[in-house]
Amino acid sequence: MTQASKTTPSHPRRMRDVGHWDMETDVAIIGFGGAGGCAAIAAADAGAQVAIFELASASGGSTALSSAEIYMGGSGGTRVQQACGFEDSTEDMFNYMMMAAGPSADEEKTRNYCENSRDHFDWLVGLGVPFKDSFHQERAIMCLTDDGLLFTGSEKAYPFSERAKPCPRGHNLYVEGDNGGPLFMKIVTDNVDQREQITVEYETRALTLIIDDEDAVVGVVIRKNQQELNVRANSGVILCAGGFVMNDEMVRKYSPMLTCGTEPIGNPGDTGTGIMMGMAVGGADINMHEGFISLPYYPPASMTEGIVINDKGQRFINEDVYHGRLGATVLKQESERFYFIVSVEQYGDYEKVSYLGAQVAGTGETVEELEEELGLREGTLVQTLRIYNEDCAAGEDTLYHKAAEWLTPLETPLVALDITPGRGAFVPYFTLGGLDTLPTGEVVNAQREPVKGLYAAGRTACGVVRTAAGYSSGMSVGDATFSGKLAGRQAANRNSQ
Amino acid sequence: MTQASKTTPSHPRRMRDVGHWDMETDVAIIGFGGAGGCAAIAAADAGAQVAIFELASASGGSTALSSAEIYMGGSGGTRVQQACGFEDSTEDMFNYMMMAAGPSADEEKTRNYCENSRDHFDWLVGLGVPFKDSFHQERAIMCLTDDGLLFTGSEKAYPFSERAKPCPRGHNLYVEGDNGGPLFMKIVTDNVDQREQITVEYETRALTLIIDDEDAVVGVVIRKNQQELNVRANSGVILCAGGFVMNDEMVRKYSPMLTCGTEPIGNPGDTGTGIMMGMAVGGADINMHEGFISLPYYPPASMTEGIVINDKGQRFINEDVYHGRLGATVLKQESERFYFIVSVEQYGDYEKVSYLGAQVAGTGETVEELEEELGLREGTLVQTLRIYNEDCAAGEDTLYHKAAEWLTPLETPLVALDITPGRGAFVPYFTLGGLDTLPTGEVVNAQREPVKGLYAAGRTACGVVRTAAGYSSGMSVGDATFSGKLAGRQAANRNSQ
Repeated sequence: MTQASKTTPSHPRRMRDVGHWDMETDVAIIGFGGAGGCAAIAAADAGAQVAIFELASASGGSTALSSAEIYMGGSGGTRVQQACGFEDSTEDMFNYMMMAAGPSADEEKTRNYCENSRDHFDWLVGLGVPFKDSFHQERAIMCLTDDGLLFTGSEKAYPFSERAKPCPRGHNLYVEGDNGGPLFMKIVTDNVDQREQITVEYETRALTLIIDDEDAVVGVVIRKNQQELNVRANSGVILCAGGFVMNDEMVRKYSPMLTCGTEPIGNPGDTGTGIMMGMAVGGADINMHEGFISLPYYPPASMTEGIVINDKGQRFINEDVYHGRLGATVLKQESERFYFIVSVEQYGDYEKVSYLGAQVAGTGETVEELEEELGLREGTLVQTLRIYNEDCAAGEDTLYHKAAEWLTPLETPLVALDITPGRGAFVPYFTLGGLDTLPTGEVVNAQREPVKGLYAAGRTACGVVRTAAGYSSGMSVGDATFSGKLAGRQAANRNSQ
Repeated sequence: MTQASKTTPSHPRRMRDVGHWDMETDVAIIGFGGAGGCAAIAAADAGAQVAIFELASASGGSTALSSAEIYMGGSGGTRVQQACGFEDSTEDMFNYMMMAAGPSADEEKTRNYCENSRDHFDWLVGLGVPFKDSFHQERAIMCLTDDGLLFTGSEKAYPFSERAKPCPRGHNLYVEGDNGGPLFMKIVTDNVDQREQITVEYETRALTLIIDDEDAVVGVVIRKNQQELNVRANSGVILCAGGFVMNDEMVRKYSPMLTCGTEPIGNPGDTGTGIMMGMAVGGADINMHEGFISLPYYPPASMTEGIVINDKGQRFINEDVYHGRLGATVLKQESERFYFIVSVEQYGDYEKVSYLGAQVAGTGETVEELEEELGLREGTLVQTLRIYNEDCAAGEDTLYHKAAEWLTPLETPLVALDITPGRGAFVPYFTLGGLDTLPTGEVVNAQREPVKGLYAAGRTACGVVRTAAGYSSGMSVGDATFSGKLAGRQAANRNSQ
């Protein structure tokens, strides 16, 4: 347990205990990833002096580690969507994102995101972010070509497709391979460096917030070169310090089911200090139990023609969903094993290219043989495959509604991959909880009143992304950059309101 | 949105803004239900002056609305367990309760509860709480006889029975019918009234906490007879103000899945103000997404011989689990309908006595007929029943491990009850999240450091009860009274430590 006497996130400093201010700025930003960078640019462009404090020795955060697809659309379509022949409606985007967020969706925030998403595309293009006007046809987790647009979620899968017209919204940077993240952060960093009103302090740790006698946030304590410095932020502090996936204790406390995942995704700074600093001044944390957890079973896209079963030999999901939805659904099942059943032909594709890394659990010249090899109760997998193959032949998945394009009868010989989390397959995860904020980025308390002078964006806040069950690639960087931009503007304009 | 200028839970009052103290005590307790009453008694018996502030015009809280089973055991058994021939081990109780709490279990708190549970029994008996030394055989949700002991959870069901020797721990008050709660609170209230060191203020609302310049809690602002009064609490404040099940906005924000339940269980004061007051002074809220939700399908116990299926015609649970585990599992399933399939004979029992109130969804002289009537895919229910009846005949439920005593083949004609939440069945719910506390009852911040002078117990805290999936009747009143007692002692002894 940390001593209360140390400067820690959970103990804000009182302004009256501040001997003198070591620095002064309008807007102080904690963290220089996608959210912090966009917040700084937007705040500077709104006329504020900005100081960014970044723990690492360079900008980047988790955005730079990602492929940086950005989920955008609506309003008739972005330039790329339109050029590729897709006319995206705000309502379809909103309906999809509300379903994606699940029962704890923030309707106001989601609507604001969708209504202003095309403008956000234009804003990013204005910063110099390049997107090619080309559509990537293949089902993929990330685009390894330089194509500008692809389907990145469950838009075409049941039940989403029933309630929102599918449209691709994953915007991929004009660069080969998965280098979108580094390129994106280079462009953002160049924009930051070009703006004289922004200073950046690297290798600088934010320790705790500073509050006045009315409990408004008026600054932040930082540590740089082994010195604690008091930074006065006249317009406010924006927390863009990432999530808490690298804080084992917090993950165990808030989202312990993620610990069955094999690999936390994030940067070393994702230790939850931003969230804790906000909580310590009255900010409410929400959705802390939710996380993204995934079984990246495609590519190859042909895997989609396989079926997933539990230890009862039963299917339980349409296999054309986003890989995060499969991960989320697996977590909810009471089953000790999960298998992906494919034909030998599909297994050949899988052997050539796969992120999943699942091991072969069994093979069978006949279904009965595979059933026995997997230790399933006699007759269960036989029945599952009988129904599935009948449905494939008839062109309709009567039980789980996998789209017709993937309905090819599964022919023997068959291969079963063990996709049980913890048994070899690659099961990455990250957290989705954070500080509750208004669409403006203002952090709110348990009664949803703003904590004066405090803003949060990116993974430190709980944004439009709330579940793995409805995730699409590009939602995180989309939310980080969008929420960062809005928080930057809001903070910059605070004292003129 | 509430104005910041009003006195609300999210805005603690600064001691320097307290003009004068209207009252002074050692320990101030917010809420006079089972937790608050036991806290007051324990604090008084430890030598403290105590003031209880209760919103309603009488004591009671949610404890008085319950049947007040109390989950106790371990250490070789309580007097009742021993008299009924059960030798309960602390380790079995601990293993069961850890499984019940699920992945976010608080091991230290659970161990403390189990190791001191038999003492707690003796403490309650010392207060005058009567238990008859008799065992109730029948499977029941609550005991409608005056028997003192019964199985109240999933102790005998898979997977619990595999990892902890089953033992009944539900202690039922010596009173006919479901009047345990009123009797229990009468006894607790009598004990409070007998102690001169305790004063009780009814019809008194706690508005917010009072903190000093070190952020320690030193009192509470109350409203009584339209007057705001500042109460100084020299040893601390104990929040025993219930959960948030009656606060629609909080339920939607934190545990929206509960809103499919038909009936919130609690008292009108369960509006989350205790939790919000704690959060406002740095207390961390945890497990806020979890709730108890139940499908009380028994009595009659014979229902346990039926099967539950989803809209794929598949079973998904062993039907001998506690009704809360069925509720929790239903919530996790992707299925639009849930049915309880019973024989006509079992349906006859159900018609005579049932809390569930589920409507008949279909009947069938044959399985095929019922399958068609329910709109299930052809062959699915037939296969499910074929396997189930084969397993019954062989005496082993190979798929879901329902205990052998309930394995009777399901014979036609069959009846299907629609147990889908929202379609007529009684699906009660309450919240399980609250302030994070140490086993002592001290409220802790996000870094798990105590917030000085602040304690919480009962549903305002997140105690040993963390999921519906592992709940047993009696855990809530058990936790409330146990945690209240410990918090009372800890607060009373604070200034002498």
